[in-house]
Amino acid sequence: MPIITLTTDFGLKDHFVGAIKGHIHKELPGATIVDISHLVSPFHIQECAYLLKNAYRAFPEGTIHIVGVDSERTAETTHLALAVDGHFFITADNGVISLIIEEVTPDKVVEINLPNSPETVFPVLDIFVPVACHLARGGTLEVVGKPFSEVRSIRELTPRITENGDAIIGSVLYIDNYGNVVSNIHRSLFEAYRKGRKFTLEARNKKVTEIYQKYSDFVNFKLDKSQRRGPGDLLALFNSSGYIELAIYKSNLGTVGGASTLLGLDYRDTVRINFS
Amino acid sequence: MPIITLTTDFGLKDHFVGAIKGHIHKELPGATIVDISHLVSPFHIQECAYLLKNAYRAFPEGTIHIVGVDSERTAETTHLALAVDGHFFITADNGVISLIIEEVTPDKVVEINLPNSPETVFPVLDIFVPVACHLARGGTLEVVGKPFSEVRSIRELTPRITENGDAIIGSVLYIDNYGNVVSNIHRSLFEAYRKGRKFTLEARNKKVTEIYQKYSDFVNFKLDKSQRRGPGDLLALFNSSGYIELAIYKSNLGTVGGASTLLGLDYRDTVRINFS
Amino acid sequence: MPIITLTTDFGLKDHFVGAIKGHIHKELPGATIVDISHLVSPFHIQECAYLLKNAYRAFPEGTIHIVGVDSERTAETTHLALAVDGHFFITADNGVISLIIEEVTPDKVVEINLPNSPETVFPVLDIFVPVACHLARGGTLEVVGKPFSEVRSIRELTPRITENGDAIIGSVLYIDNYGNVVSNIHRSLFEAYRKGRKFTLEARNKKVTEIYQKYSDFVNFKLDKSQRRGPGDLLALFNSSGYIELAIYKSNLGTVGGASTLLGLDYRDTVRINFS
Repeated sequence: MPIITLTTDFGLKDHFVGAIKGHIHKELPGATIVDISHLVSPFHIQECAYLLKNAYRAFPEGTIHIVGVDSERTAETTHLALAVDGHFFITADNGVISLIIEEVTPDKVVEINLPNSPETVFPVLDIFVPVACHLARGGTLEVVGKPFSEVRSIRELTPRITENGDAIIGSVLYIDNYGNVVSNIHRSLFEAYRKGRKFTLEARNKKVTEIYQKYSDFVNFKLDKSQRRGPGDLLALFNSSGYIELAIYKSNLGTVGGASTLLGLDYRDTVRINFS
Repeated sequence: MPIITLTTDFGLKDHFVGAIKGHIHKELPGATIVDISHLVSPFHIQECAYLLKNAYRAFPEGTIHIVGVDSERTAETTHLALAVDGHFFITADNGVISLIIEEVTPDKVVEINLPNSPETVFPVLDIFVPVACHLARGGTLEVVGKPFSEVRSIRELTPRITENGDAIIGSVLYIDNYGNVVSNIHRSLFEAYRKGRKFTLEARNKKVTEIYQKYSDFVNFKLDKSQRRGPGDLLALFNSSGYIELAIYKSNLGTVGGASTLLGLDYRDTVRINFS
Repeated sequence: MPIITLTTDFGLKDHFVGAIKGHIHKELPGATIVDISHLVSPFHIQECAYLLKNAYRAFPEGTIHIVGVDSERTAETTHLALAVDGHFFITADNGVISLIIEEVTPDKVVEINLPNSPETVFPVLDIFVPVACHLARGGTLEVVGKPFSEVRSIRELTPRITENGDAIIGSVLYIDNYGNVVSNIHRSLFEAYRKGRKFTLEARNKKVTEIYQKYSDFVNFKLDKSQRRGPGDLLALFNSSGYIELAIYKSNLGTVGGASTLLGLDYRDTVRINFS
């Protein structure tokens, strides 16, 4: 049976997530449910999209992803179920899906319209769960709604290239559990404009001139331990999603801090690369 | 096989929850275990009851709920296993069960008395897990203990009606992940005393005169965006459990705050409704 | 099929844990995955070891434990898969395994060397998951690497016995969810040196002269409630792992504080027992 994943801003204290899982198990004995995150910042669809974009392809084809952030149906926002890139998504039409799938075109989109569907203050439970269970049982999208073609598209800030092609001006996309600062500059964009040139990456008043493939490449293990760079030093690397990330080697937000706190960088702040 | 749920104040960092799940899987290969919450405030049985009361009915009949808050057996507090409302609960007799099931009468209650049961500092693992696995295998309550009739009953603060019936004086029952303030005034009580009258809901120095069915009903989508109420504004609504709740539209406790921080409301503070 | 457990410092907000679970389910339909903890302090292998040491034996024999703390392969640190004490562990050779298994000798250790294994910034996903799935399918250690005999061994601070045998000088090993202070003095060591003598346990400026078997043994239920010790009072007990622990009865770190905050005790601070 397909897996059902949950990505929400419900937090882990309240009963919401437990109730959702109970309902799924009631409708679908033996269901496999996987939490992607319940700690999305409330109503922050960009953050939700970043997490889901970087997680969904890890799941088997046919997986059903419930997106429980900003999920109320309003006069301006309908509920959608989509088949895209071999996966299903169930979400409010708040723009989050355009950030998750980016250039991929959905194979099918329906506007959810369940028979006897109540107005509800808890649409993830009352609307998304029944749709997910229907799909998990092999049901079709057509049964839960009619085709919908105007999926709301929003765009996250994208890096800007200076006119002469000598700089990429990006911004902070996400701060992770270690305080690592993830920029919106992808390896592919970086390489496309680098053209073999040297470069300087600037964020606030810090500069680095190398981007590593993994954290420990930053350390020269041939040197004596006392000579090496190590915990507390700033580095840049391509993270596991391919984005340029600023990190403090072996950082700990709870004690010494991470790149975000030490550089004073937050969501949407500027990260710039100058080629020379 | 029945589901086993866990509701505890063990937190998510320590090894306690992992060890419990390991033990269950060891006794019961293929078990389905669902976390309701492990972030109950330590020893806060009212909070535990609020979460479990609002989650347990979502699960299939026959589900076994382990209550791991204030669970030590003492000279004054025994361990109970109960069949009630189609579900099983395993808990210390600390009063929490009376808050969870409220008016429902248990079908059967036993005082747990396992053979060779050790004195233990970790009763959820050493007592509750074996009982849960026994019940999951289809075992009866009679095998794990003898009938018990004096279940401890405690009462949470209940709303008071003024003598003339012109006001309901309730209090704060729970603060949720968004900082929404959940009162103990249920829709059914409100409607019983309202009798079609206008009303004012008062909490601290704030007043509202409408209670919505869902968050976005608060927004008039026919108005131009600049004219609408929106993020940051206070509203009242009936939450998914039927209680009157005060919320800040699209609040975020981590940034702009929620109703609890903006109104300075905490557990057991007063929420009052005046009819006129 | 064997269970796979996860113990990491990835936190619960980022997509890392979700992506790992997705990959496991993709390789191993029907897998059972149990989280031990994802809230290990970043790079804190002593804390990781404490949690895993106290949880792993609860799981069925054959369980596969993925250790996702400080897991990068470097010039000095290889990746290991071990069969030990009836369980499998997959970890970087950073010393954590010596703290987890302590005196137990591994039955077999291999240095992981997957064919076409990429250099990776996310070794838990790219290396540990494929190895875990291989083992879960009944594969052998020999297939994933060659024998390795020099597992890195580190030692946590161990209690010191004074020359005359009249005192044990231990230290803080862990602070739990309740702020309870877990020392590294085990019941077996305590009893070996006590030899029936009276004792005083000292931490900062506090002293206690009894160590209880469980929290509520601290309370004399024969006394009238007003006469009893209770919430807020300091006690010592043997915790569920056998270590001497300092606790505040019914403590709450979020409100009144726990033993760690009230005594000002932190990881590695001194806890001393004087026999007399």
